[in-house]
Amino acid sequence: MREAVQRDVALLLKDGVAPFVVGGDHSVALPVLRALHEKHGPVAVVHVDAHLDTSGPEVWGTPYHHGTPFRHALEEGLIERGALVQVGLRGPWGRPGDRDLSIAHEARCYTAEDLTRVGVRAVSLDVRERLHGKPVYVSFDVDAIDPAFAPGTGTPVPGGMTSMEALQLLRGLAGTNLVGMDLVEVCPALDHADLTSLLGAHLLFEGLALLGVTK
Amino acid sequence: MREAVQRDVALLLKDGVAPFVVGGDHSVALPVLRALHEKHGPVAVVHVDAHLDTSGPEVWGTPYHHGTPFRHALEEGLIERGALVQVGLRGPWGRPGDRDLSIAHEARCYTAEDLTRVGVRAVSLDVRERLHGKPVYVSFDVDAIDPAFAPGTGTPVPGGMTSMEALQLLRGLAGTNLVGMDLVEVCPALDHADLTSLLGAHLLFEGLALLGVTK
Amino acid sequence: MREAVQRDVALLLKDGVAPFVVGGDHSVALPVLRALHEKHGPVAVVHVDAHLDTSGPEVWGTPYHHGTPFRHALEEGLIERGALVQVGLRGPWGRPGDRDLSIAHEARCYTAEDLTRVGVRAVSLDVRERLHGKPVYVSFDVDAIDPAFAPGTGTPVPGGMTSMEALQLLRGLAGTNLVGMDLVEVCPALDHADLTSLLGAHLLFEGLALLGVTK
Amino acid sequence: MREAVQRDVALLLKDGVAPFVVGGDHSVALPVLRALHEKHGPVAVVHVDAHLDTSGPEVWGTPYHHGTPFRHALEEGLIERGALVQVGLRGPWGRPGDRDLSIAHEARCYTAEDLTRVGVRAVSLDVRERLHGKPVYVSFDVDAIDPAFAPGTGTPVPGGMTSMEALQLLRGLAGTNLVGMDLVEVCPALDHADLTSLLGAHLLFEGLALLGVTK
Amino acid sequence: MREAVQRDVALLLKDGVAPFVVGGDHSVALPVLRALHEKHGPVAVVHVDAHLDTSGPEVWGTPYHHGTPFRHALEEGLIERGALVQVGLRGPWGRPGDRDLSIAHEARCYTAEDLTRVGVRAVSLDVRERLHGKPVYVSFDVDAIDPAFAPGTGTPVPGGMTSMEALQLLRGLAGTNLVGMDLVEVCPALDHADLTSLLGAHLLFEGLALLGVTK
Amino acid sequence: MREAVQRDVALLLKDGVAPFVVGGDHSVALPVLRALHEKHGPVAVVHVDAHLDTSGPEVWGTPYHHGTPFRHALEEGLIERGALVQVGLRGPWGRPGDRDLSIAHEARCYTAEDLTRVGVRAVSLDVRERLHGKPVYVSFDVDAIDPAFAPGTGTPVPGGMTSMEALQLLRGLAGTNLVGMDLVEVCPALDHADLTSLLGAHLLFEGLALLGVTK
Repeated sequence: MREAVQRDVALLLKDGVAPFVVGGDHSVALPVLRALHEKHGPVAVVHVDAHLDTSGPEVWGTPYHHGTPFRHALEEGLIERGALVQVGLRGPWGRPGDRDLSIAHEARCYTAEDLTRVGVRAVSLDVRERLHGKPVYVSFDVDAIDPAFAPGTGTPVPGGMTSMEALQLLRGLAGTNLVGMDLVEVCPALDHADLTSLLGAHLLFEGLALLGVTK
Repeated sequence: MREAVQRDVALLLKDGVAPFVVGGDHSVALPVLRALHEKHGPVAVVHVDAHLDTSGPEVWGTPYHHGTPFRHALEEGLIERGALVQVGLRGPWGRPGDRDLSIAHEARCYTAEDLTRVGVRAVSLDVRERLHGKPVYVSFDVDAIDPAFAPGTGTPVPGGMTSMEALQLLRGLAGTNLVGMDLVEVCPALDHADLTSLLGAHLLFEGLALLGVTK
Repeated sequence: MREAVQRDVALLLKDGVAPFVVGGDHSVALPVLRALHEKHGPVAVVHVDAHLDTSGPEVWGTPYHHGTPFRHALEEGLIERGALVQVGLRGPWGRPGDRDLSIAHEARCYTAEDLTRVGVRAVSLDVRERLHGKPVYVSFDVDAIDPAFAPGTGTPVPGGMTSMEALQLLRGLAGTNLVGMDLVEVCPALDHADLTSLLGAHLLFEGLALLGVTK
Repeated sequence: MREAVQRDVALLLKDGVAPFVVGGDHSVALPVLRALHEKHGPVAVVHVDAHLDTSGPEVWGTPYHHGTPFRHALEEGLIERGALVQVGLRGPWGRPGDRDLSIAHEARCYTAEDLTRVGVRAVSLDVRERLHGKPVYVSFDVDAIDPAFAPGTGTPVPGGMTSMEALQLLRGLAGTNLVGMDLVEVCPALDHADLTSLLGAHLLFEGLALLGVTK
Repeated sequence: MREAVQRDVALLLKDGVAPFVVGGDHSVALPVLRALHEKHGPVAVVHVDAHLDTSGPEVWGTPYHHGTPFRHALEEGLIERGALVQVGLRGPWGRPGDRDLSIAHEARCYTAEDLTRVGVRAVSLDVRERLHGKPVYVSFDVDAIDPAFAPGTGTPVPGGMTSMEALQLLRGLAGTNLVGMDLVEVCPALDHADLTSLLGAHLLFEGLALLGVTK
Repeated sequence: MREAVQRDVALLLKDGVAPFVVGGDHSVALPVLRALHEKHGPVAVVHVDAHLDTSGPEVWGTPYHHGTPFRHALEEGLIERGALVQVGLRGPWGRPGDRDLSIAHEARCYTAEDLTRVGVRAVSLDVRERLHGKPVYVSFDVDAIDPAFAPGTGTPVPGGMTSMEALQLLRGLAGTNLVGMDLVEVCPALDHADLTSLLGAHLLFEGLALLGVTK
């Protein structure tokens, strides 16, 4: 899968297309970032997620897992030092040292609780300034959003962003140099009233709208 | 349908009753406004909705549709110029020119995103001042509220009001001269855990409570 | 049931354990408070709920009911005067005089609408100062939270707290002398996508985390 | 409740109306049978249910419960000896002696498994012959039907009748002297896709249709 | 819509393709039958449905409706006299005379209750003999199946076929000269656990499998 | 996992306990059969399932998968030749040769459609005679049952057994020498109205009841 995605995304990039990739799970982000690296070198990443996704070196006996893509991406140099912003982190699963990898790469981490303090507009502004001029990839795990708004996902965590905050976060990126986006971890079989699918479609729409105002 | 509703509402109005009408779809607002116009002349309207509902001249080959009642109402002069307030507007369906009709009638439009900036209490205050003394009709489409709080509706749009904001918006109208209300677009077959029906009942309760303090 | 719970909780307290009790309905709070009173005398209580739960003297023909535990607790002297804080109150069921018992015992009542004005962090701070040094029991009825976040409960009321506000309220109690907690009114048969069960587990986790920083 | 129902049903009977009563739980059958007894003396009863509902003398500390109406009815002489037919019985809750009361009153008991052997048409025929000429009351607990067809009920038991078998059972009673019917234990909050409510409405329709061909 | 479907199906037929059409509502059957008539003249039809769909001349003020396609098809001569078989009919909506049109065209009608008497294999055999050698179109309304197996449809009627009976009915058509099929009235928004979508896909698979053995 | 289950089941067997194992997926059957083989040598198996579960040599790149346990069990000699009975098979996924392994081991295969012809009681009788005196293991995949009765499973297939047929199949095994049972593939997150969990519990109850009459 990783090789097939990397190859196909590389073809799209060659044609000047900004790839929009829809999961399935977060594993898909790694081959997309590898393909972006081929073209752009290290990129900036806005990683919206309840989880760090930097687990490892192994999860459940395998080095590749939907909890590991950003560890690989950081270790492989696909993301520029200081140009990773993680937004929406929360939950009781953390262990001491979990953020060490993010910290070592000078990532900026906003927890879900940080968002209630500084507001999503301030976060967007910080992201825009921090990543100004760099090629930016948005990797959006729908579990960043509270399960009330997005129940259809595999590892829901209470206390997340509202749908409006998610839309505003993306709108606040207008003016960045967006080079691609993924929306992952939508699981229709666990959804209710199509809440998550519908929200996911709107998040992708907001991402596409950014392309019109980018640069 | 339109004739039957207009006739029955007119009878209620004759008896001094403030009509509270429950949809079904938003088409029901037009005959109610026609009946109100017979008695009061042009009224003020607080239109809470994700959509403008001023589409036309035709939708799906017919001049009357649940997306057209406010175009008819404005064109028929049922609403006083400058006395239409639309709250909760949002979504990716808009085309340039969609708001032209509202603008031409000097309507005040609050998008859902505006609400996150100015706050629902400021909106209520603005409405109260703007509509002071006029006969006010509240037309409440439940899709103004986010699908997480109101999944049971036909055209849900992510990024809407919370249930609390909806309640506060109505409470903030205390002191206006309420002459009627509708609550529309509740669709029980699409609902989950009765969220939308229960919220709809509370919205009507808040509207009824306004009658006790209206003057 | 009341006798069995009181006896078992008393045994736990004798061993120095802080009881964490999971409902079932809110009736369980009364025997826990009786057991706590045996050990601590009158305690302080943070009662998070959409309802006052001070109904009586009878509900549906019986003196004990899930709407009566705090009336009994107040009348039996299980709660210290002035040391009851009720958070999340709302809904159209109230009658004049409903809060008389709370007022007579100098309880502090925060409605859900108060929370939107003062913010949950200010409430937590007020609770910490008001209850400083006293043994504190947290009685958490999941219907304090909006049905969008917690649909699986028997008496849902629109307009409640968000899941994040609930988590923050508990986190804001760090430093209080927590002697026990209950989480009640989770009804899995009415739940959707396990929203309420999952949130309930996180609320208990936050309560347990408080024990680690309690002084 | 019991007194109010008995009184109101008696009024209907006085006017020559065949009462059709909708639950709520099965407790409602007892006062209806008391009212029927006032007019007709002991009646015949077709009791469709997964459970015997002859528990007692107490359930959960009370003599009246939704598991006791037929014990009371038999003990009070409301049902003619030999004229009770129970259809649909099943499940792992039984204890030795559970059927003693039914047996003592010479009731005819068809388990759900009996239905798969003899067929629902044979059961209807047996009922018609056994109850020929007597005033017949049909007491239909929706949990007689398999939870796949009727999930919205409080004590579902796998292995029940299909919806078609239920309809055929009722149709097979054409020609009996029907004097009333109840449909009980429909619980919309536990339902899915309105399966149980819709089926319940059709069962009542079939009962009403019997009145047209009775006698 | 009718013109577009007829035109596109005609193109497929020109290329020797057997059209498999998926609804949407049953209105789609009429233009498919019109296109089949262009090529084959009057065809034989196996119409599986809870409803006759021969309503008219108007439903809700319009001559074309999802309850009218077979009235049009019969009146327009698209179906050979005596070569319409309707399977699965049931429900309390019928009026005297509803079957007059079917009877006038010598249609064979199997109610859902007939199926419990004669068995689905006997019905398939009768269909095969009756339609032997003729071009056969299968029009399958998923509401022929009981709502327990197919809840996601707009006009569910309790007492329908099981999923196995539906599969067997289609398998029993092996050897007929199948020239096309539709599967209609699947409504995902009303579905649960994807029961109806999954069953619909299997029904289409069985139809496709018939093409391999058709002669 | 396989080693841990085999070890723990072996301990139970040493104590004379008949293991009842609840999945999770069907992978759990293999280590249970290995442990049974240690004690009993090759056993007889009643395998109730929509699928053969003899896939391989690899599924998705791994030799062990929930579609492979019976291939391993047959190849490892854990099941006596001629003493495997597979009941409930169906679905459009089959390829020519899929049953070769079952046939090579002289297994008896009943498809779901066979059940509608011969009846579940005849199948039980055949199983009892075929396996008479041998140690019998029942491996019950809940997807043998139709999704209407058991929606909460990962690979649902329309056209399965009813809940009553499943109960009767097990009851019909009374008198066999039952040495253990599993119930697998219940997935609560995909369930509705707890249908599958409740049915699963009843199936295990029927299995336990067999122990009381086994000889």
